[in-house]
Amino acid sequence: MSAATKYVTLEGRFKMHRGGYLESPTMAYETWGDLNEDKSNAILIFSGLSPSAHAASSGEDSTPGWWEDMIGSGFPLDTDRYCIICVNSLGSCFGSTGPASVNPETGELYRLTFPTLTLEDVGEAAFGVVRSLGIEKIHTVVGCSMGGMSGLALCVNHPGAVASFISISSSARPLPFAIAMRSLQRELIRCDPKWQGGNYDPGDQPVDGQRLARKLGMMSYRSPEEWEQRFGRERINYAGPGDEPFRIEFSVESYLEAHANRFSGAFDANCYLYLSRASDLFDLAEHGGSLAAGFRHLDLERVLVIGVVTDILFPLHQQRQLAEGMKTACKDTRLIELDCIRGHDSFLVDMDAFRPIICEFIECSGDFTAKS
Amino acid sequence: MSAATKYVTLEGRFKMHRGGYLESPTMAYETWGDLNEDKSNAILIFSGLSPSAHAASSGEDSTPGWWEDMIGSGFPLDTDRYCIICVNSLGSCFGSTGPASVNPETGELYRLTFPTLTLEDVGEAAFGVVRSLGIEKIHTVVGCSMGGMSGLALCVNHPGAVASFISISSSARPLPFAIAMRSLQRELIRCDPKWQGGNYDPGDQPVDGQRLARKLGMMSYRSPEEWEQRFGRERINYAGPGDEPFRIEFSVESYLEAHANRFSGAFDANCYLYLSRASDLFDLAEHGGSLAAGFRHLDLERVLVIGVVTDILFPLHQQRQLAEGMKTACKDTRLIELDCIRGHDSFLVDMDAFRPIICEFIECSGDFTAKS
Repeated sequence: MSAATKYVTLEGRFKMHRGGYLESPTMAYETWGDLNEDKSNAILIFSGLSPSAHAASSGEDSTPGWWEDMIGSGFPLDTDRYCIICVNSLGSCFGSTGPASVNPETGELYRLTFPTLTLEDVGEAAFGVVRSLGIEKIHTVVGCSMGGMSGLALCVNHPGAVASFISISSSARPLPFAIAMRSLQRELIRCDPKWQGGNYDPGDQPVDGQRLARKLGMMSYRSPEEWEQRFGRERINYAGPGDEPFRIEFSVESYLEAHANRFSGAFDANCYLYLSRASDLFDLAEHGGSLAAGFRHLDLERVLVIGVVTDILFPLHQQRQLAEGMKTACKDTRLIELDCIRGHDSFLVDMDAFRPIICEFIECSGDFTAKS
Repeated sequence: MSAATKYVTLEGRFKMHRGGYLESPTMAYETWGDLNEDKSNAILIFSGLSPSAHAASSGEDSTPGWWEDMIGSGFPLDTDRYCIICVNSLGSCFGSTGPASVNPETGELYRLTFPTLTLEDVGEAAFGVVRSLGIEKIHTVVGCSMGGMSGLALCVNHPGAVASFISISSSARPLPFAIAMRSLQRELIRCDPKWQGGNYDPGDQPVDGQRLARKLGMMSYRSPEEWEQRFGRERINYAGPGDEPFRIEFSVESYLEAHANRFSGAFDANCYLYLSRASDLFDLAEHGGSLAAGFRHLDLERVLVIGVVTDILFPLHQQRQLAEGMKTACKDTRLIELDCIRGHDSFLVDMDAFRPIICEFIECSGDFTAKS
């Protein structure tokens, strides 16, 4: 974990949304900027499935974070004015309690004895962090991808606890294509003999399954349009071994291979499975019996929904549905449809498109020309 | 193989497009309807990657074929007027010579000693079948998916040998998203320990890898829109064993599981790998140095390009590119964009949309109301 990581124990039994509990789970988080006197300037970031709490560098840790170009003095999430908080999701493996943690009641790793994880739990645990800092009302929740649903879970379970909400490439509930994509990724990991029903040695992850799952993940995180522009039918120069005649030949294959190798082993397999499943399970309609009722349970002052035209995981019509629903709960809801080419991952890589939009909504002090 | 299957040996050394040869390969095919006196009424069908030559039932085999509702008396491919021929692709495993066949020169299965397969070879071998029947000029070539590229290969290598060409959900060359999808499917098969570098027992296929590959394939053959309508977030009733908490729960997962189980073991793994790779390799631009040159090599009288708006494997802009290119070679080129919801596979399952279009082009005698 980063030297900048802070920890808080949520004392007592943390009751899980679908049953079971965690005994005094730990939450890892980082902060940038200071809380003001009345603690009204907190911005809480929920990440996607795989990042840690290290969203940006700081004095304690100069390593660039996963949203480095969004956070800082004069940046859209402006550390001169706001206290930015990013939590490592409950269930993850970067300091927060998850399936790879030791169950204090047994002294053993949780593994698959970890109770069913939901994004309601992820939201609730993050809310515990915020409360531990004495914050009564969160200025803005920003949720990216899975984090958008975690944030929505927090908002629906604590009406009035959040003033503004920014949903980025997320949804009110995943559609079957996204569920199928994730389900197959999970199956690829579970089919690796090294997974051993979840009982692998933590230092010896089912990396073959993880590699394959990552490749599949990348196919939903990027866009066919990007790859057409970027790779076309370009070939690589290849002089290594391989399963002739099926070795890597096209640049797009080599790109996926490099991404898969970089990611595999960096994330605990069971944690990935739990968080992936939690993403499938989230459905705002479960809060009240219908999507409309779910939206009515929200109590927000301002909402920004950002979607990307080339996103195949959380497609544009879901963004519109989300924004329409949000409007019923909050008149000051704005939908921005970004014409980025890099699909679902655009919020991580196309900063020039996202910064002005978020800057304008947050009213940051930086100079980002708004385009929408 | 079907009782209706016919066989022809292409005598001598069949030279492969990328080097190597096959010694007197066998081609399996079926026919429906009779050749007329001057043998000018032949319609040649190229299938997608996995079907056999059994496109429709007949007196010899009453089992429904993979394009049952397209072929017959009064159907768009009208057996009263045309002699319909469907070949099993070279490299496949339903009667035609492929990696699962015995190499007559060694007495052993080809397996990975099979030379690199291209769709030029698939086209050429089919042309050998046609020539063996004494046909000088093919009335119409119909190519579906991979078969569209096989047909294009035949047309570009034998200018003037084909009068009309129907391309269905195919392209002039695959894009990186389709290549990546197929590459990952191949990797899933090759990662199955039972594949054994291609040396598995033919009666004991790497079915786990094949199951996973099929699931991934289905994700590209259908469309997110279809699944949204069809499954939404519907759950299944489940009472069997499974890897709790990751067992199948959503209907879309169950649907993929059923499809995967049905397909796995039904197709030889090595044949699948060769045909899949051949699909990636095809590029009309290799015939002349550019796509434009490739199109100029064609000599066709009439062309019909059919694409489907929800196809993510051969997306609509590829259909437009193909039709534009075809127009440079053949003024009588028509593009039909079908608003079917079932994605790439629509030509197999949405007969009501495809029949009138093909009927109109072929000028069939049946009563299919044209809509376009």
